[in-house]
Amino acid sequence: MKYKSWIFVIISTLFVNIEAKVKYTPDWDSLDSRPLPGWYDEAKIGVFMHWGPYSVPGVGSEWFWYNWYKNDSKVLDYMNKYYPPGFKYQEFGPMFRAEFFNATQWAEIVEGSGAKYFVFTSKHHDGFQNWDSDYNFGWNSRDIGPKRDILGELADAFKTVDVKFGLYHSLFEWFNPMWLADKAANFTTQTFVNNKVYPEMVELINKYHPQVLWSDGEWEAPYQYWRSTEFIAWLYNESPVKDTIVTNDRWGSGKIICHHGDFYTCSDRYNPGVLQPHKWENAMTIDRKSWGFRRNMNIEDILSMEELITQLAMTVSCGGNLLMNVGPTSQGTIPTIFQERLLQMGSWLKVNGEAVYESTPWKYQNDTLNGNVWYTTKVEKKSGVVVFAFVLEWPEDGFVRIGAIKGDECQDVSMLGYSGPINTMNTQQGMIIELPDRDRVTTDWAWVIRFASCKYVSNEIWK
Amino acid sequence: MKYKSWIFVIISTLFVNIEAKVKYTPDWDSLDSRPLPGWYDEAKIGVFMHWGPYSVPGVGSEWFWYNWYKNDSKVLDYMNKYYPPGFKYQEFGPMFRAEFFNATQWAEIVEGSGAKYFVFTSKHHDGFQNWDSDYNFGWNSRDIGPKRDILGELADAFKTVDVKFGLYHSLFEWFNPMWLADKAANFTTQTFVNNKVYPEMVELINKYHPQVLWSDGEWEAPYQYWRSTEFIAWLYNESPVKDTIVTNDRWGSGKIICHHGDFYTCSDRYNPGVLQPHKWENAMTIDRKSWGFRRNMNIEDILSMEELITQLAMTVSCGGNLLMNVGPTSQGTIPTIFQERLLQMGSWLKVNGEAVYESTPWKYQNDTLNGNVWYTTKVEKKSGVVVFAFVLEWPEDGFVRIGAIKGDECQDVSMLGYSGPINTMNTQQGMIIELPDRDRVTTDWAWVIRFASCKYVSNEIWK
Amino acid sequence: MKYKSWIFVIISTLFVNIEAKVKYTPDWDSLDSRPLPGWYDEAKIGVFMHWGPYSVPGVGSEWFWYNWYKNDSKVLDYMNKYYPPGFKYQEFGPMFRAEFFNATQWAEIVEGSGAKYFVFTSKHHDGFQNWDSDYNFGWNSRDIGPKRDILGELADAFKTVDVKFGLYHSLFEWFNPMWLADKAANFTTQTFVNNKVYPEMVELINKYHPQVLWSDGEWEAPYQYWRSTEFIAWLYNESPVKDTIVTNDRWGSGKIICHHGDFYTCSDRYNPGVLQPHKWENAMTIDRKSWGFRRNMNIEDILSMEELITQLAMTVSCGGNLLMNVGPTSQGTIPTIFQERLLQMGSWLKVNGEAVYESTPWKYQNDTLNGNVWYTTKVEKKSGVVVFAFVLEWPEDGFVRIGAIKGDECQDVSMLGYSGPINTMNTQQGMIIELPDRDRVTTDWAWVIRFASCKYVSNEIWK
Amino acid sequence: MKYKSWIFVIISTLFVNIEAKVKYTPDWDSLDSRPLPGWYDEAKIGVFMHWGPYSVPGVGSEWFWYNWYKNDSKVLDYMNKYYPPGFKYQEFGPMFRAEFFNATQWAEIVEGSGAKYFVFTSKHHDGFQNWDSDYNFGWNSRDIGPKRDILGELADAFKTVDVKFGLYHSLFEWFNPMWLADKAANFTTQTFVNNKVYPEMVELINKYHPQVLWSDGEWEAPYQYWRSTEFIAWLYNESPVKDTIVTNDRWGSGKIICHHGDFYTCSDRYNPGVLQPHKWENAMTIDRKSWGFRRNMNIEDILSMEELITQLAMTVSCGGNLLMNVGPTSQGTIPTIFQERLLQMGSWLKVNGEAVYESTPWKYQNDTLNGNVWYTTKVEKKSGVVVFAFVLEWPEDGFVRIGAIKGDECQDVSMLGYSGPINTMNTQQGMIIELPDRDRVTTDWAWVIRFASCKYVSNEIWK
Repeated sequence: MKYKSWIFVIISTLFVNIEAKVKYTPDWDSLDSRPLPGWYDEAKIGVFMHWGPYSVPGVGSEWFWYNWYKNDSKVLDYMNKYYPPGFKYQEFGPMFRAEFFNATQWAEIVEGSGAKYFVFTSKHHDGFQNWDSDYNFGWNSRDIGPKRDILGELADAFKTVDVKFGLYHSLFEWFNPMWLADKAANFTTQTFVNNKVYPEMVELINKYHPQVLWSDGEWEAPYQYWRSTEFIAWLYNESPVKDTIVTNDRWGSGKIICHHGDFYTCSDRYNPGVLQPHKWENAMTIDRKSWGFRRNMNIEDILSMEELITQLAMTVSCGGNLLMNVGPTSQGTIPTIFQERLLQMGSWLKVNGEAVYESTPWKYQNDTLNGNVWYTTKVEKKSGVVVFAFVLEWPEDGFVRIGAIKGDECQDVSMLGYSGPINTMNTQQGMIIELPDRDRVTTDWAWVIRFASCKYVSNEIWK
Repeated sequence: MKYKSWIFVIISTLFVNIEAKVKYTPDWDSLDSRPLPGWYDEAKIGVFMHWGPYSVPGVGSEWFWYNWYKNDSKVLDYMNKYYPPGFKYQEFGPMFRAEFFNATQWAEIVEGSGAKYFVFTSKHHDGFQNWDSDYNFGWNSRDIGPKRDILGELADAFKTVDVKFGLYHSLFEWFNPMWLADKAANFTTQTFVNNKVYPEMVELINKYHPQVLWSDGEWEAPYQYWRSTEFIAWLYNESPVKDTIVTNDRWGSGKIICHHGDFYTCSDRYNPGVLQPHKWENAMTIDRKSWGFRRNMNIEDILSMEELITQLAMTVSCGGNLLMNVGPTSQGTIPTIFQERLLQMGSWLKVNGEAVYESTPWKYQNDTLNGNVWYTTKVEKKSGVVVFAFVLEWPEDGFVRIGAIKGDECQDVSMLGYSGPINTMNTQQGMIIELPDRDRVTTDWAWVIRFASCKYVSNEIWK
Repeated sequence: MKYKSWIFVIISTLFVNIEAKVKYTPDWDSLDSRPLPGWYDEAKIGVFMHWGPYSVPGVGSEWFWYNWYKNDSKVLDYMNKYYPPGFKYQEFGPMFRAEFFNATQWAEIVEGSGAKYFVFTSKHHDGFQNWDSDYNFGWNSRDIGPKRDILGELADAFKTVDVKFGLYHSLFEWFNPMWLADKAANFTTQTFVNNKVYPEMVELINKYHPQVLWSDGEWEAPYQYWRSTEFIAWLYNESPVKDTIVTNDRWGSGKIICHHGDFYTCSDRYNPGVLQPHKWENAMTIDRKSWGFRRNMNIEDILSMEELITQLAMTVSCGGNLLMNVGPTSQGTIPTIFQERLLQMGSWLKVNGEAVYESTPWKYQNDTLNGNVWYTTKVEKKSGVVVFAFVLEWPEDGFVRIGAIKGDECQDVSMLGYSGPINTMNTQQGMIIELPDRDRVTTDWAWVIRFASCKYVSNEIWK
Repeated sequence: MKYKSWIFVIISTLFVNIEAKVKYTPDWDSLDSRPLPGWYDEAKIGVFMHWGPYSVPGVGSEWFWYNWYKNDSKVLDYMNKYYPPGFKYQEFGPMFRAEFFNATQWAEIVEGSGAKYFVFTSKHHDGFQNWDSDYNFGWNSRDIGPKRDILGELADAFKTVDVKFGLYHSLFEWFNPMWLADKAANFTTQTFVNNKVYPEMVELINKYHPQVLWSDGEWEAPYQYWRSTEFIAWLYNESPVKDTIVTNDRWGSGKIICHHGDFYTCSDRYNPGVLQPHKWENAMTIDRKSWGFRRNMNIEDILSMEELITQLAMTVSCGGNLLMNVGPTSQGTIPTIFQERLLQMGSWLKVNGEAVYESTPWKYQNDTLNGNVWYTTKVEKKSGVVVFAFVLEWPEDGFVRIGAIKGDECQDVSMLGYSGPINTMNTQQGMIIELPDRDRVTTDWAWVIRFASCKYVSNEIWK
């Protein structure tokens, strides 16, 4: 029963061209009926970047301004120590200089990570717009700081790599007086939405043709205030990316998040560990403490490759996509530690990508006996049903014990990145797999066992 | 015939309370029918201040940004020499710090000048707003630079002195993308006006209750685009200052300037030298080269007291008000040379103010024989019709020759600031007045001869 | 008796070429025996400028750093309000940018003031050197801020005008660690003098050939520590300006100031009001509160022309020179109010300079009856002994009463800047002078009565 | 024969207390006779840090200023693009703010790397002094930028960890005018050395008691100019660290480097690959392009752990110490990628340190058959002569073939970080060692085989 929605995803994808002719109406029932564009589920991995004036102080997180306003001691102490008393966040704008920003280099690093899509903060809650907007004057990357159309450069650069370009966008702006006025009026006025938010979203789509629109900052006001269903209907019916764009679930207060949208994000760093009935995404950070760059991060704050691949395996096994976030410096460089992690991920995926891209969840997510083993599956032309087991820890004795696959269910067992044969043994509880000599295996951090031609297994999945 | 409008001004002022009940309609005929609130014509002298981020570079003028954009060599050379290549005007914002700004001190200096009203740039063409606006985020004095509500502080300070508070406001903003988009659409769209200009003007009036609204930046678009008549009707009918506020004539392209509005400004530094049929104002600058502060001004750029009083005499004689402009520094101080000029003017007016305040033009503006003598008149309770002759230059021989007044037209001749008698002699052409010993006269720069109880003369004025 | 030294000055000046061959020994007796180079006494008026990083904050005075260190509340409040907690004075260095500094313009303004010499701060107590020195690295105008050889540009510019170029130099530097170490050692060590002060003084003289060396900052250490007599002996015997340079009296703690040196300064703003036995100088400020530029000065802080000319008359009458100080802005401009005062002084001197330049004190300094009248005298070819009376206030009735000159003592009475005759009347007490019509007199602020061919009077002076 | 000097080192260390009473004379023969304090050779690994204002631009390298002066296009392009035309290097000083600098954290990271000593730039060629010096005013970390005594904080912090504290010091300063004057005088004058360099070196030693003095910037002038032998004699005879300090070989132009001093550095990144007759050091950088922090470094510029451990093995095998350099950011943080490399090195040394610390070179440096194997040796109480083979690459088949050790020469073979037995096989050419399952070995990147109780082998070493 619970796999229904997944079947729907797969089937509906085939009919997407036909269905695109349907006109969606601005209500959730109609909008939710739209099939998810196939590319998104197949992509599995994206890179997320948060970049804005908060990278200048680089203290705490990208919520710097708000935390300051809330008298967060970390921010207060820093500001009291290094800035004049009346200094304001907006004065960081001109210091956000992006001297070394090179969109092509960013695109290459993202592609090198194995990610298939990229999501970039067009505007965060501070309201700073990283583009050449008609609806912003003075508080954007054209007028101060970088003095460039950041989105334009990135959109162009990502055309040259095999990575789709997407945009994050915050609906609210903490301290925009128009927002504050609407809020004070209990959202009986919509000046902020009508004058700024709505037109700027239309501009974003028309100008940069993103394939992902990652909405955020929605939670204080109902979707009616934001004109969300109206906007999404336009997005699906008329926008230049109507057939391919995907959007998330952050479009209004109350039961919108985790309930409506092309894919669900539910919460930051959402990673439920069990199969979800609807396509979802685990948006998480490689610096475990912040989405924006922190100038004072230390090595212990950085996820190890083992942790990162654990996130990937769990997420993909449970039907999610992994969106790995890194924060560039205010100078426009990607910190070398992030470059390293991303490229390590890319090298791992070069060997093990078969188990990730275009895979679907299997009937089991993690193994019935062995919590360190997670599964995906797919149907391949030559090998029929294939099941992939992600072994997250190399057992001390070299023998992996699993319960989810019986010895006779699959005819062929191998290891990605290892050309030799893999010995298995059937037991009462399941199967024992003898790993090869580790030094002859091409990857580190996690290993994928590939079970092919799995007759019986495959039936079970989709029944 | 040509004095009709003046009579109308005087008479209508008496009925202003009654007429205030009339509802004006949003068309020029109706709006132009409004009587000029009496205080404005009586005031005669105001102080104007231009203050904004342009005072940071202080090179060229307050048109710094535009001149830069137009490759003005003075600006280009300065910027090329002292700033990094991509530096933008908006980055001057945080440097506009106003450390020493003291609204009370400003109010006292303005009062000390003898001015009866004050006009301050709420927003110039660069779009920087000197107030705590709901329609601006990041490009205003609350968010960057001073980080204060400049207008609020000034409005409060001027309540403590006998000087009315007024605001300058630029309709267009050179580089606001909303404006540029409307302009590119040939003003078929009004996004800029509807989202920004109109609401911010209403906000200005409601929040700061100015007695003057000095509009500017109108000339590129028709008044219909600006919704000017709609706004002025609101100003006259409903605004909290509807009975007392005056506004000028800069409300749209074409034949608006010098044709509509409470008072006409016609052009910058307008000083026609002949009587005007409608109330007007000579808005001029004490630094002859700029409205905004120039860091590199030299003493030869500063009007001498003789020049300044010549401006005053000519302007008032011809029915205008004099609005003397000074530009404060980016630190919020009024340059000492401007303090000196303003206080010298104040000391002069303390002696000679009787000839200025509440006066009206006489039948002659400058003398028929002597170009250095200008006239005003008024009716005083004890002295009946009084005529004042402003003698701008002390004649070498001490005898002033005039043609406009015959010996028998006035019974009493004296000099303001001098208690002794004044000898006169009738001649064929007019009158010769013997000035007293100059060292016994209390003022410098210009001297006023007062002719009182002028029977015949008075009749001539109003016929 | 008391005029002896003045006679000595005059006579010795004639023999200066012969005496220059004498070798001075490094002791005060020998050094004090040097005749004063004649140009200095004849010059009478100089312009002083204090310019350095203190002009950046421009708060309090040029003692900004020291006052900060001493917790002066004016400085502390300003710094606490506008700068980060740990900000240090030296960080103002790069902000001292001198963008508009134009040595030629300065020289012209100084010449326009009527001054005959110019004294400029090569280095003040903060240690910042305004020149391209071999003995400073990083804390000078070559390395930071202006990034120019300020002294070099000024020395060149003053060659093109009729104004001699001089230098102010502070011996001590408040916070130089070498100085502090010597001081802590009770001046038993001389590291600071040997490594820095002495060589830099020699460099100054050799490189810029100043005609005045205005020493300061001497008071905490004895002249032996400073090697002052050794240095001055070199200055008089061997330096490239040995025949013409003059130096002042600030060369060591104790009884040096007001006791040794070419001219005495005794204290800041020294103006004793009585004749002095030794050539002296009244170094004073046009901004009455500071030598360095203050960004927040107000017009009431500025000396009026009446005050300034009173200083001049008193000073010259008592045998002093007047050194008028103004502080340029950190951008290199001379504030317009100072330009105005200097040029007004120049215009006054153009008319009245005869009574100032090359004059000497008379037997009376101010009049025996009239405290507002001060005297100088000189011998002119055509007119014999001439006595000049500076009338500082125009009497209400136009009659000046004096007691120092009897009616028959001088044959010819006139007024500078007035071509007509001057009537006088002898009385019991002295003389009554009838001033002409003030409007026919070419100057303001003070007036000079010239008594020529004063037979008897002249004898009295020099007997 | 060639091992003589090593024997000498070992023996002489035992007598160091006795010999310390000897007075060294200021000539190289005498100075070179001083035995190397034992701790230095035993330490083997140090961490080097270059920190100064060059970390603010962080472009090119710590030679930023010089490269700029030499019109290096990388620097010029950056400066032309982001700074005003006349900007000077010294203006970076106040921007070098060190906000997050935490000496304790640095000490812990260095200790965590397994290093036994630390060398820090007290002053680089730009002349900026990272300490509270009596011989610097304005161009140091006390007066501008950090406004702290960086050396003082570090010296204190390193007392709390088991890492010796050392200082780098540049003799010359590219643009110090005193240096330039001496140089222009062909070093016939020594103003720069006498007034600045010599006293500041004495100050450094007396104030911070470093255990290493790492001299540099010597090459343009002879050691006589620098007064090097005089200084080192003082260092060895009288300084507070006379018994323990070591210094390097950079003390004058010509044949000083690689010829005199406690240890030789010969050239930057010196790594000869063959045994050296005198104690030496391989000072190298983890960022392969720079010693100072580069803001735009990329991951490919960073040495991998394999490369870094190869450097270590080669260096120690040939008698050198490895000094690994990292450049902190201008904010005072150690970039996370460097933290990672240092801590990875520490984790490797925790397992393999026995083969490194207190080891000596063996008769072979790298293996006679296998270029990827390098040796060290030591005598251990329980195991007699021990030889360590660093295997830098795990062979594909798991069998390491070596030629330097025959099967019977050592009785006991094991692997550091692996508790099981190691099988070996004798062959004609040498020995075949079977490595264990790699997944049971505790370290990555390189593996150390330990040969113990090597009777014959040991004799050969020292004969």
